[in-house]
Amino acid sequence: MPSITTGKPEQVRVALGERSHDIFIGDNLLDRTAEFMQPLGLGRRGVVISDTNVAPLYGEALCQSLQRADYEIALLTVTAGESSKSLRQANRLLEKLPSLRLDRQSFIIALGGGVAGDLAGFVAATYLRGINFIQIPTSLLALVDSSVGGKTGVNLPQGKNLVGAFYQPRLVVADTATLKTLPKRELRSGFAEVIKYGAICDAAFFRWLERDYRRVLRLESDAVRKAVRRCCELKAKVVSADERESGLRAILNFGHTIGHAMEALVEYEGLLHGEAVAAGMCCAGCLSVKRAGLKCADARRLRGLIKASGLPTHLGAQFTPEELLAAMWLDKKALAGKVRFVLLKRLGATVVSDQVTDSDVEEVLHVCR
Amino acid sequence: MPSITTGKPEQVRVALGERSHDIFIGDNLLDRTAEFMQPLGLGRRGVVISDTNVAPLYGEALCQSLQRADYEIALLTVTAGESSKSLRQANRLLEKLPSLRLDRQSFIIALGGGVAGDLAGFVAATYLRGINFIQIPTSLLALVDSSVGGKTGVNLPQGKNLVGAFYQPRLVVADTATLKTLPKRELRSGFAEVIKYGAICDAAFFRWLERDYRRVLRLESDAVRKAVRRCCELKAKVVSADERESGLRAILNFGHTIGHAMEALVEYEGLLHGEAVAAGMCCAGCLSVKRAGLKCADARRLRGLIKASGLPTHLGAQFTPEELLAAMWLDKKALAGKVRFVLLKRLGATVVSDQVTDSDVEEVLHVCR
Repeated sequence: MPSITTGKPEQVRVALGERSHDIFIGDNLLDRTAEFMQPLGLGRRGVVISDTNVAPLYGEALCQSLQRADYEIALLTVTAGESSKSLRQANRLLEKLPSLRLDRQSFIIALGGGVAGDLAGFVAATYLRGINFIQIPTSLLALVDSSVGGKTGVNLPQGKNLVGAFYQPRLVVADTATLKTLPKRELRSGFAEVIKYGAICDAAFFRWLERDYRRVLRLESDAVRKAVRRCCELKAKVVSADERESGLRAILNFGHTIGHAMEALVEYEGLLHGEAVAAGMCCAGCLSVKRAGLKCADARRLRGLIKASGLPTHLGAQFTPEELLAAMWLDKKALAGKVRFVLLKRLGATVVSDQVTDSDVEEVLHVCR
Repeated sequence: MPSITTGKPEQVRVALGERSHDIFIGDNLLDRTAEFMQPLGLGRRGVVISDTNVAPLYGEALCQSLQRADYEIALLTVTAGESSKSLRQANRLLEKLPSLRLDRQSFIIALGGGVAGDLAGFVAATYLRGINFIQIPTSLLALVDSSVGGKTGVNLPQGKNLVGAFYQPRLVVADTATLKTLPKRELRSGFAEVIKYGAICDAAFFRWLERDYRRVLRLESDAVRKAVRRCCELKAKVVSADERESGLRAILNFGHTIGHAMEALVEYEGLLHGEAVAAGMCCAGCLSVKRAGLKCADARRLRGLIKASGLPTHLGAQFTPEELLAAMWLDKKALAGKVRFVLLKRLGATVVSDQVTDSDVEEVLHVCR
């Protein structure tokens, strides 16, 4: 049953020299994937990697639309959830590809949220030293953040994303209609990253979110498109300037230093990434007032938007500040013996600081409880 | 016990934009690794990955010389042999790195032959999405071929090098003195790749090899340096023009199409890579006479040099032509349904052809028995 396509898709270009590619954004684009692939001149054989949540919803429709366009497609499904983002799962997938006769012209499509994208991307990056990769994100987090920028990876027992590759997709098909099947809590979690892009890069976008966040969370089509488009544009700009995170790209970690520590402490159970980032951004807001000259009023606006969109602004009674500090120091970015914080000078402008002391953090964590 | 350093090392630059790096070539360079690393501004922490053959010979000396230069070094040893080039082994190594506190500034050194280089390179390419990588090849094959060009990878049950990454080292330290401990059969095997570089790229170098191959195989210092240097220069030139094997780089597969099939048929047991390539080059020479206008006399010169250096020129009674043809079609480069042959137009000049028919191959295989 063909779905109704509403209007021309939005198009965002990620400028990365020979790795440049387009993001198409709009409702009901999934069935049009073959059309977007056509100019890329890929081989006829491909694999869709999805998970047990998303494959039953969109897997068949996607595969059938590709088969109608004469592609030979196999669908590989992994168990939904972070535990699939493992080397073991990557190996299992890699070992299936030769018998599917995938060659260097073939392609791998990630269909799903961040887990499917990161895992399938890593598989695409390493099979035959890299074959064509296409992202079809179906969660808000993946639409606005993880499907853009080429970070792929899996977890080790010691931490998230410790193994991976920078590997750009040839194409991103951002079908905003897939958000209708996303659980509301996941939607809010993804919205934390939307807030992040406003806070770090674009004060006008942040103001628009303050006014229209309800319309985005209610999935009003024009509002969702605008939010997704703007986040993709902002991320594309940052990634174009610093693909391999040697400088500027670090600003995308705003709220993540403390957020990652929280996720590690609960062992990624019962706390969504965006929820941890939301609370982390509130702490980073307080630190920014203390160490980067952010106005108190602007830190309150950040906290206000996070709270209004139903995201946590504080850590609750789950962890002590001491536990969080210890976990922060175990984070991969702190391995070198230095924790660097992304702080806000003002809404829309960041500074990266290694001047934040443990006692600054502890104080803020006490206040934010 | 410090070893004697003879003269200034030779230096070959691999020009690859921001991935450019140097190869230092000479006797007894191992102990000077820290000196060559110094301009790269790497972190103080690193890991040496070696195998059970090479680690006892050179592992301690290398680690101690680095420790004297204030590096914190751990030595990780894998079982010698192709079976270590597996995803399982890569995973085991990757899982050890966080507890050694390796961060993005840290480095991984491959110390050994092709297996250590390919495996350690893959680990370096994927840990934290890529950390600094240094090659210290200790086999002739690795010195002249596998340590140059950035191909890293591991095997799948279905075939060799099916998983990997293009990932350039920051530095190659080619210590020709390590060849003294290399078994003679391994030395000859590596010499097949030396012959290959002459045959495909440089007729004058080929002529020099015809005259001086004994001096190289006897490990006379100036002859070894010249051979290693010239192969590195030739490979660097090819790789600079086509890093990711989208065109020109394919010429490096001269002799490998049939060679790989032979290796696959014996399941990589009892036949060294260079031995398979040597016999493969003889067949490719015959095919070149038939399909690319190579003079009979030049095909005989190629066979003559291969034979004189103690390498196999024919397949023996091990395989039937039919078996070899079938194995060729299973090779990863044939997955798309086409076998492309690198042929010689003349000594020093190649042409890539997909016009070679199965019956051409069968005929030549019959003749070469």
